[in-house]
Amino acid sequence: MDRLIKCSANYSALSPLTFLKRAANVYPDHISIIYEETRFTWKETYERCRCLASSLKFLNVVKNDVVSVLAPNVPALLEMHFAVPMAGAVLNTINTLLDANNVATILRHSEAKLFFVDYQYVPLARSALKCLMGDSKSGHMANVTMPLVIVIADGVDAMATGIPLGQLEYEQLIKDGDPRLQLPVLQDELDSIALNYTSGTTSAPKGVVYSHRGTYLSTLSLILQWGMGFEPVFLWTLPMFHCNGWTFTWGVAARGGTNVCIRSPTSSNIYRAIAKHCVTHMCCAPIIFNKIIEARSTERCPIASPVQVLTGGAPPPAALLEKMEGLGFHVTHAYGLTEATGPALVCEWQSQWDNLCQTDQAKLKARQGISVLSLADADVKDPVTMKSVARDGVTMGEIVLRGSSIMKGYYRDPAATSLAFQGGWFHTGDVGVVHPDGYVEIKDRSKDIIISGGENISSVEVEAVLYTHPLVLEAAVVAMPHQLWGETPCAFITLNKQPSAPGIKTDVSQEDIISYSRKNMSHFMLPKKVVFLEDLPKTSTGKIKKFQLRALAKELANSDKTLNSNPKAQNSNSHGTRRFEPQEHQVVAMSCL
Amino acid sequence: MDRLIKCSANYSALSPLTFLKRAANVYPDHISIIYEETRFTWKETYERCRCLASSLKFLNVVKNDVVSVLAPNVPALLEMHFAVPMAGAVLNTINTLLDANNVATILRHSEAKLFFVDYQYVPLARSALKCLMGDSKSGHMANVTMPLVIVIADGVDAMATGIPLGQLEYEQLIKDGDPRLQLPVLQDELDSIALNYTSGTTSAPKGVVYSHRGTYLSTLSLILQWGMGFEPVFLWTLPMFHCNGWTFTWGVAARGGTNVCIRSPTSSNIYRAIAKHCVTHMCCAPIIFNKIIEARSTERCPIASPVQVLTGGAPPPAALLEKMEGLGFHVTHAYGLTEATGPALVCEWQSQWDNLCQTDQAKLKARQGISVLSLADADVKDPVTMKSVARDGVTMGEIVLRGSSIMKGYYRDPAATSLAFQGGWFHTGDVGVVHPDGYVEIKDRSKDIIISGGENISSVEVEAVLYTHPLVLEAAVVAMPHQLWGETPCAFITLNKQPSAPGIKTDVSQEDIISYSRKNMSHFMLPKKVVFLEDLPKTSTGKIKKFQLRALAKELANSDKTLNSNPKAQNSNSHGTRRFEPQEHQVVAMSCL
Repeated sequence: MDRLIKCSANYSALSPLTFLKRAANVYPDHISIIYEETRFTWKETYERCRCLASSLKFLNVVKNDVVSVLAPNVPALLEMHFAVPMAGAVLNTINTLLDANNVATILRHSEAKLFFVDYQYVPLARSALKCLMGDSKSGHMANVTMPLVIVIADGVDAMATGIPLGQLEYEQLIKDGDPRLQLPVLQDELDSIALNYTSGTTSAPKGVVYSHRGTYLSTLSLILQWGMGFEPVFLWTLPMFHCNGWTFTWGVAARGGTNVCIRSPTSSNIYRAIAKHCVTHMCCAPIIFNKIIEARSTERCPIASPVQVLTGGAPPPAALLEKMEGLGFHVTHAYGLTEATGPALVCEWQSQWDNLCQTDQAKLKARQGISVLSLADADVKDPVTMKSVARDGVTMGEIVLRGSSIMKGYYRDPAATSLAFQGGWFHTGDVGVVHPDGYVEIKDRSKDIIISGGENISSVEVEAVLYTHPLVLEAAVVAMPHQLWGETPCAFITLNKQPSAPGIKTDVSQEDIISYSRKNMSHFMLPKKVVFLEDLPKTSTGKIKKFQLRALAKELANSDKTLNSNPKAQNSNSHGTRRFEPQEHQVVAMSCL
Repeated sequence: MDRLIKCSANYSALSPLTFLKRAANVYPDHISIIYEETRFTWKETYERCRCLASSLKFLNVVKNDVVSVLAPNVPALLEMHFAVPMAGAVLNTINTLLDANNVATILRHSEAKLFFVDYQYVPLARSALKCLMGDSKSGHMANVTMPLVIVIADGVDAMATGIPLGQLEYEQLIKDGDPRLQLPVLQDELDSIALNYTSGTTSAPKGVVYSHRGTYLSTLSLILQWGMGFEPVFLWTLPMFHCNGWTFTWGVAARGGTNVCIRSPTSSNIYRAIAKHCVTHMCCAPIIFNKIIEARSTERCPIASPVQVLTGGAPPPAALLEKMEGLGFHVTHAYGLTEATGPALVCEWQSQWDNLCQTDQAKLKARQGISVLSLADADVKDPVTMKSVARDGVTMGEIVLRGSSIMKGYYRDPAATSLAFQGGWFHTGDVGVVHPDGYVEIKDRSKDIIISGGENISSVEVEAVLYTHPLVLEAAVVAMPHQLWGETPCAFITLNKQPSAPGIKTDVSQEDIISYSRKNMSHFMLPKKVVFLEDLPKTSTGKIKKFQLRALAKELANSDKTLNSNPKAQNSNSHGTRRFEPQEHQVVAMSCL
């Protein structure tokens, strides 16, 4: 059995690059990319990518070189997902919302050889390069190498970008390329294809490395899990720099679909693109939901047929999901992390749920769900014993994952890699439960659990209740230090600015929120403090920056010693653990943090 | 980039066995198998398979041991697809329509350690074992080892099977098994999982070996290519012994679906199962189409919602596809071979074809199509130069394939393996063209091409025209030797036995067929001889045994020298190549061959 041949006839390295070649063969004249007035076919996209890859070779890009890019969701960024690895290099997409220092940190750490910059981000790139140059000149980092810069002019006059003439330009590289040049053949499917720096809310960014094998398997399994059929029309609302667009940068090619690129995901851009191009699919963080729900009537277009939406990031509250469904968006909820090549658990719909009421359906949908097919296993384990928790929907543990779609590791950080892979599992740092039906539900990011009087309070659970209040637009709950109980929940809220109907009141007091909460959650979970804000602080990918809120809650606790020293009411739950009732509620109005 | 960790957190061997474990986790209470009055859930199926695997270990089955099975589509055969490789062994499903000598050949060549036999095939198995025993006793093959026999009694009294008491029984092995036994962990995804002997029409059967990796990738890519969604209800009309049921033995688990098993795919069993269990999907060779189309009214049930049918084997004539659509079956056409783990090309539907008339759609659908996602490449090449043929729908070449879903090789036959993999491609031996849209269409099996006066005539093309005749049920065209032209086409036909409407005539003459053909095909392709038969000779998998027809055509040519010596009419085509008109048509009535 084991003496059989392994050759090119019966073994080929798994790589998402094969999807492009196949698309060019199978769907040569289908539209691959729509962007403003530009249209490409798959035959053209394949040709353009081969040209770009050949130009990279002419620029002496070799295997494992890092090619960085700072760009919005324009065709160039999509093409680079194929062309850069076709040249044997590793694509490093940089979050466009980072500041110059962060960009410089990434360029330095990745030792980027080339740096593609969209004209819109030339000022940011220039500042970042100055930081790098400073390092170099000051001798702070003796061996800093400056990357070669290539501007993505996107039809805009290069002079207007302020980049000195003589620099390289993206379209020129494609024009100068040779589509017939023999490109390197992938020998090992574990070779690196992408390097994505996490936008960690608490720690320094880490460089997550993906392999060809991992991204190939992730791509197939996400298509399967989402049920994305043939010829999807995919709207790029999710930044491609976010886990390579959850692999759909490659996945749309695998399905012979069309990529609809927009420079900026504004409400009107989203609605217009959906209507004009008959969009069938989109991915986004829940932050985009607000843009869709809050859009002014002049920004809206009618949604002719349902748009499939895959969402991730923060768990979306059931109330928000319901609103989206009402507008014609069919939401599937996934849970993932950069380290898992995007979505790792998907809330796969079961036909037996079809007959439940919309509210119950939305609750089921808000769960993170089951592992995608490319994972060998997903589990929730007691972090001390590493034993699987009971499937009771109550017992919490850490969500751990294993399988070929998990990252190769953190780039140049063996200590962090070993820690993340301890015991042969990838540790997500997220806390969840397993329901009797096997579906996982996140209770919190480890650091977001509020431990009060020995009881774990899930901030997500408290938030989910607050979101059901008709006037609450966004809610974030964090731990506030407490002398007696250790921590107590503190809620930060933004309100709906537009009344849902004429005559409906739009103001609300802290008492309203508390009394509403008391009716809808266990009393030991009640927020001790409610803070109304104009906006919640968010990361570039729309995650709420809880560390900022935590700092604010700490400040508020310190400035209000009475809150910590005078607990008026205490009680015990049936297990004998002390629980508490809220004593005071303070309202703070702030315009921003 | 290359110094990153490879560990169980981020690498796991690809294997379709993971689908069962996942199904048991994710769909524990869904029905996995329906068979007569039996129902299993995925939790139960997983438990039963672990029990069976543990019993195999107790029976000293070790890695790479071959476990053979002779059974119809009963639950035991499905379970063995998981349990046997779970024990580290290799599953060898034997075609139940083979004779005792062939079965013995397979047992001998595979050196099967265990031999599972369904009660229905105990007489066949006993004869086969006698052949083996004879070898052993006669010293003909000194080192023949007799496999241990296990009967699949399927609830039938074991005594009735005629197998002596004391033999092992399938359900007893499950009952005696221990689901908690630690089973071997798959270390290398290239380990063998299955061994399938081809039912070659011309040569001795060859043992095709599949790997865990290959079958995993094939399974995912067939689900994707067919667009089989969640929770399918899959009717087993395709024998599981045929390329492991085109991988759907594993694929239904991957989708959390239900396997509907029937012992025999009769017309009434098929219609009844579809109606009773709301079947959504089935695979079959076109031979099953006839059962569906020809079913008596008492055997039919109404088809409530369309059944997705994946078909392969011989290319189905457009006319047949149209009839199936009319009955509520949505047919997708695939092309494959045992060596490619089942379907390798699928006729993926393109939305732009939706507006074509039904006949044009059926014609497009009869093409073999495009490569499945798990193949790295599929091409049609000139067999001499190995260059890709022009994409003109006319230039013929050999269909060649490469990728990880191609077999590991032929078991204990390195010469045949090397030949099949020559030049780093798997050579299918089939002749096809590539259409301008990239879709491949088979023109013939290499050996089925009729070369007449230097012109290649595709027997499939002639057959496709014959099939459009309203009274033709089946048609097979082969080469008949000819002194002047080398070869000429000879058609074998069976007729519809039931009139399509009252009063419609059901008899037809050779002249009718020829004059109908003359209106519908190039004259150089016209059959020179038309033979009416009661039945066409077929292999167990429904492929027409053309070698038998070829032998008959040769006989007819010899016995009719006038046909070969007296060509009445000749003409030239525009390329100056001589073509011919048919001169004589003989009708032979035969009840069987």
